[in-house]
Amino acid sequence: MKRISLIPWLLVFTASSLLAADTVEQWGVYEIALRGPTNGNPFLDVKFSARFTQGTKAVEANGFYDGDGSYRVRFMPEKQGEWRYVTASSSAELNGKSGRFAVVNPSRQNHGLVRVADTYHFTYADGTPYKELGTTCYVWQLQPEALQEQTLKTLASSPFNKIRFCVFPKRYTWNTNEPIMYPFAGNPATTNWDFTQFNVKYFQHLEQRVADLQKLGIEADIILFHPYDEGHWGFDRMPADVDDRYLHYVVARLAAYRNVWWSLANEWDFMKEKKESDFVRFGEIVAHDDPYHHLLSIHNGQKIFNHTLPWITHASIQNGAAVEEVGRAEMYRDVYRKPVVYDEVKYEGDIANRWGQLSAEELVFRFWNATVAGTYCGHGETYKSDDQILWWSKGGVLKGQSPARLAFLKKVLDDSPAEGIEPIDRWQRPEIGGQPGKYYLIYLGKQTPTNWDFQIPKPPLGKLQSADGMKFTVEVLDTWNMTVTPVPGEFTLKKKDGYAYTDMNGQNVPLPGKPYMAIRIKRAKE
Amino acid sequence: MKRISLIPWLLVFTASSLLAADTVEQWGVYEIALRGPTNGNPFLDVKFSARFTQGTKAVEANGFYDGDGSYRVRFMPEKQGEWRYVTASSSAELNGKSGRFAVVNPSRQNHGLVRVADTYHFTYADGTPYKELGTTCYVWQLQPEALQEQTLKTLASSPFNKIRFCVFPKRYTWNTNEPIMYPFAGNPATTNWDFTQFNVKYFQHLEQRVADLQKLGIEADIILFHPYDEGHWGFDRMPADVDDRYLHYVVARLAAYRNVWWSLANEWDFMKEKKESDFVRFGEIVAHDDPYHHLLSIHNGQKIFNHTLPWITHASIQNGAAVEEVGRAEMYRDVYRKPVVYDEVKYEGDIANRWGQLSAEELVFRFWNATVAGTYCGHGETYKSDDQILWWSKGGVLKGQSPARLAFLKKVLDDSPAEGIEPIDRWQRPEIGGQPGKYYLIYLGKQTPTNWDFQIPKPPLGKLQSADGMKFTVEVLDTWNMTVTPVPGEFTLKKKDGYAYTDMNGQNVPLPGKPYMAIRIKRAKE
Repeated sequence: MKRISLIPWLLVFTASSLLAADTVEQWGVYEIALRGPTNGNPFLDVKFSARFTQGTKAVEANGFYDGDGSYRVRFMPEKQGEWRYVTASSSAELNGKSGRFAVVNPSRQNHGLVRVADTYHFTYADGTPYKELGTTCYVWQLQPEALQEQTLKTLASSPFNKIRFCVFPKRYTWNTNEPIMYPFAGNPATTNWDFTQFNVKYFQHLEQRVADLQKLGIEADIILFHPYDEGHWGFDRMPADVDDRYLHYVVARLAAYRNVWWSLANEWDFMKEKKESDFVRFGEIVAHDDPYHHLLSIHNGQKIFNHTLPWITHASIQNGAAVEEVGRAEMYRDVYRKPVVYDEVKYEGDIANRWGQLSAEELVFRFWNATVAGTYCGHGETYKSDDQILWWSKGGVLKGQSPARLAFLKKVLDDSPAEGIEPIDRWQRPEIGGQPGKYYLIYLGKQTPTNWDFQIPKPPLGKLQSADGMKFTVEVLDTWNMTVTPVPGEFTLKKKDGYAYTDMNGQNVPLPGKPYMAIRIKRAKE
Repeated sequence: MKRISLIPWLLVFTASSLLAADTVEQWGVYEIALRGPTNGNPFLDVKFSARFTQGTKAVEANGFYDGDGSYRVRFMPEKQGEWRYVTASSSAELNGKSGRFAVVNPSRQNHGLVRVADTYHFTYADGTPYKELGTTCYVWQLQPEALQEQTLKTLASSPFNKIRFCVFPKRYTWNTNEPIMYPFAGNPATTNWDFTQFNVKYFQHLEQRVADLQKLGIEADIILFHPYDEGHWGFDRMPADVDDRYLHYVVARLAAYRNVWWSLANEWDFMKEKKESDFVRFGEIVAHDDPYHHLLSIHNGQKIFNHTLPWITHASIQNGAAVEEVGRAEMYRDVYRKPVVYDEVKYEGDIANRWGQLSAEELVFRFWNATVAGTYCGHGETYKSDDQILWWSKGGVLKGQSPARLAFLKKVLDDSPAEGIEPIDRWQRPEIGGQPGKYYLIYLGKQTPTNWDFQIPKPPLGKLQSADGMKFTVEVLDTWNMTVTPVPGEFTLKKKDGYAYTDMNGQNVPLPGKPYMAIRIKRAKE
């Protein structure tokens, strides 16, 4: 029976001339490129999309015009096996084209796109945990080529697995150079743009940089709008129909790249020409157009967006104060019931603005507060330099002392439970994160104790009457000096009261009296 | 002209037999009482309502059956002058009855109902500021009569202007006595209730207590559902149609009392037989039925409700940790853009539960943190006593040391700007609240400094180039010892940098090196 049913399938397969090249890896980009009309304005006049199917599963993806008569539609297959497609278009040349292709095993570094997991955390689609540790270089990809390459090189040896950057050019202090290209046809000198004509080279370049980041295993947190234009080019105050067309275009081009995250805006509330309701519309457009539902959020200036809206996957928050104190860091989790990513907590640097003069110690401290609170944090760097290249905006090289410590934190995160670090005794002992009964990470911040009273909040007991007798190992982590020092022996739980357990032998944890210490407690193998 | 127009109005007025008694003060309760059918089950069978009109303004109010053939509909007029009404009913006896009445000036203690003002604060309808300072006695009105009277007497001399209490009886540690009455007909011994028959005496009594509180100037924050039943009586797990009928009934009875606030639940998430969506339905029912849109919220256990929902007027939050540190207290304001009332921050007391063993100092500290963060706080007291009367649940007398200090805080609040205390340099200096350029309240909490660097965040300048030369007076407040000590002379602003001003003569504020100090800074009269 099996062989008989196989043969007709193979015949069909061959009949449609499926080439060896017509394979793509799972979560890779499958692209259909067709020639189409060049008359009129293809950006406005031609509708083009494709429907990809595997059995009863169907995915609709919008296509886009890529200039010179070239039309493309891209697809990121989330399932292996054979897929078929058929195109649809207002142009006869592009309509009804069909084909099939095979989706094969992902390559070793390809874990798929990042999704929300366990309410407050992230995972790659293949189940590999993703512990967010991001940085920001707002317009690195719009700097001169050599600087872009340097940025990629720096990122390659950094601990960062996400980078925030803008589609549109940025104009701001330390950042008044013009970009290498512009997103629309027109005259840069007069900023007289033809908003009906995308500059396809601009978006091809953007895609290339997203692909470059993907090779490095770095997520591209793409900022779709931002206020750092203030009418200079006017990309912050385009008409509503242009905004919407731009969003449709960017999503059509980029959604098939698995490492894309959408950030509707940086400091949305500082865009004085837009209303809050505009961003709701933007979010709905992106959520509607993106067939894969990449992570989608929006970043605030002073006014936090309503992250309870259903299409927002995680709360992307600027609030440095929220991670200055460990008890604050957790609070947004409760209200949003989504992952919280502090995408701006002020920057390590030495500029006069109070958002850009954190010490490295302070920035690393904030990351650790965020971590034990079950949230994620973002890095930025604003050291003055003669060449006016501040990492925060342009990339280049990292000058600060925090990245090495964040690499140490990353090792700690990689060693932490796959399901994420959770508040352990919420609203009571915010300095303790972990997974109850398995793993605890306690961060002591700026305190300089010489001893930590070994005390574990009551773990979930399941069928047990008591956690008495559970054994744990303890390590002392110096988060600044990047050392891990095991405490000899084991700690054995003994009930203290209805809330906590101590060690049955009365052992505590000796500490060196220095700041920035953490304690890591793991369930001992029985 | 005036006299001529007056005469026909008076004639009409007289023609409809408006009696002298047919007047009610603005925001008072106007009640229409009619005799109606007693056959069948009037609670289920009879629809009864009235439409009240003044010119083009119309208010629909549901009526209710009050037993013994008595039907009532109540109305709280929000505007003075003549109002008319006409009833509507499924019963001919109650249908189409019309009348008119005069709404006169409110009496001196009547400021109308409390509304949200300036996004984060409250005001009475007549414009008098309302600075919330609440307490909790969950089932005080279901205790023996003498104890209820004692509670009212205690409240009369307390600083509290809101009290949270439950409609349904409560069963919990220190609170296992049966209530004086039950809300439904049935057999208490077997808890076999007839959910189709309200016990009207129960609700008449509830109303009386709401009216008693009104006389004391205290808002009644009425908790409509709570989990402290756990099936003992079963009021926490009634069928959905009973829940809904109960809500319609309570709102019909109580909405005309101006001092009512609705709290959909205490610890909603601890009601294991209800889903989150049930509370959304409850909120929609109350918001729909209440013609006056009294303040409406819902209080959490571990899971904070989605206070962004449009019918929620303010965020009623249980989270003691949120007011343990001044920077935390402000954070919910940003996400809800509504007033934040910390309706449970743990209690002053000495019981073994960690939610009931705060020192008075700690509870007062939490109130002050909430205050300078631009939020409001709730009191509770759990001192053990032989008679098992803990204020938190049953009322009685206050035994703690916090109420006197909260009375001191109340005086500070009454003296503070009508528009409320706002964060002054949000996410930067959370210890400073006030109104920029006018009034600052700085709370130093557990710090024990001997000096405060006089430094005011940059006020809004309007047309001014600088705030240089603005003059302020300074007072030192000992919030525990309840003293106010003026600092001699004045402080004159001089720009420090882009963020702050200091005193032009380099004056600072001497402090006594004690905890719980506050500094009050007011603009000097020029």
